[in-house]
Amino acid sequence: MRLLEEKIISDGKVVSENVLKVDSFLNHQVDPALMFEIGKEFAARFAGDGITKIVTIESSGIAPAVMAGLQMNVPVIFARKRKSLTLVDDLLTASVHSFTKKETNEISISKKYLNENDRVLIIDDFLANGQAAVALVELVHQADAEVAGIGIVIEKSFQPGGKQLRNLGYRVESLARIDSLLNGTVSFINEKSEELI
Amino acid sequence: MRLLEEKIISDGKVVSENVLKVDSFLNHQVDPALMFEIGKEFAARFAGDGITKIVTIESSGIAPAVMAGLQMNVPVIFARKRKSLTLVDDLLTASVHSFTKKETNEISISKKYLNENDRVLIIDDFLANGQAAVALVELVHQADAEVAGIGIVIEKSFQPGGKQLRNLGYRVESLARIDSLLNGTVSFINEKSEELI
Repeated sequence: MRLLEEKIISDGKVVSENVLKVDSFLNHQVDPALMFEIGKEFAARFAGDGITKIVTIESSGIAPAVMAGLQMNVPVIFARKRKSLTLVDDLLTASVHSFTKKETNEISISKKYLNENDRVLIIDDFLANGQAAVALVELVHQADAEVAGIGIVIEKSFQPGGKQLRNLGYRVESLARIDSLLNGTVSFINEKSEELI
Repeated sequence: MRLLEEKIISDGKVVSENVLKVDSFLNHQVDPALMFEIGKEFAARFAGDGITKIVTIESSGIAPAVMAGLQMNVPVIFARKRKSLTLVDDLLTASVHSFTKKETNEISISKKYLNENDRVLIIDDFLANGQAAVALVELVHQADAEVAGIGIVIEKSFQPGGKQLRNLGYRVESLARIDSLLNGTVSFINEKSEELI
């Protein structure tokens, strides 16, 4: 998605060979107009796939997921990283380890919002090692619902998550796929050239 | 806001005299079309007030805040409840106690996204004791920015937060104001009758 790639180039900051900081428009300060376009793009890529629900994880997944839900006219559920006292019964739960934050969280979704008739689009802001996405897939399966696809805003393709999920048979649509962050520079995978390989 | 009040009546659950559960459309499962209308309503109420930024707090404030930002064409910043390893330097911080979750969190915003030229609209999903809103006000003041107003999706007017903030001189616009949850029933404040008092 060219608009997103341009935003990453202009406003993203390469912190190290593994870390791209996009907290000026995606995961701390949020650009609502860009999120709206991201929602449109997800809706276009998964049009006609019979999606009934979007599932994401707090907090950075919420903005792109809600914009996609607006376009696709389906509810959005965000998995919570901790139990709250008003949301304790009948939870689906899975563990997710964050390499960035160096911690393991239990994430959960209330059982009543997913069932065996749902075709779920999983959306998240980043895909790197795939820990969060795999945990969300697990929650969807616990509800006997179907994973129709996984929509990612930024995939760091040099880390293993995307490949693993595709090898497991899941359709992963990443709006920007980063090939490398070497030498302080963001290089994207050119989708067209990749298709020729 | 009638649409919101109708949704609270039809889909909200009165758990106790103090707790209204709206996790079917606001703070776990999210209704994107309703959030869009909520964003429009906030934009209408604060039109012409020179808002330059919206500030909210993860996670439940994000959806309404981003929809308001879309309508008002301004960036949205969500305060984080914990420091992440990629967001450590130059933080504005404040403490917020959650009576619901029975815990105190430090919330933070990166200094670089707020400055003395900003007129800030604070948005959150709930206003009860006002702890979160007061902490967000504190963050805005730390940046020498101005609080132009506070936009709340659901105010529990029988708890003290709204009154305290208004007494401090802040303009608080709540889209639904709940007078009472007694006997398992949601009663709203009738804005017109209140104005006559």
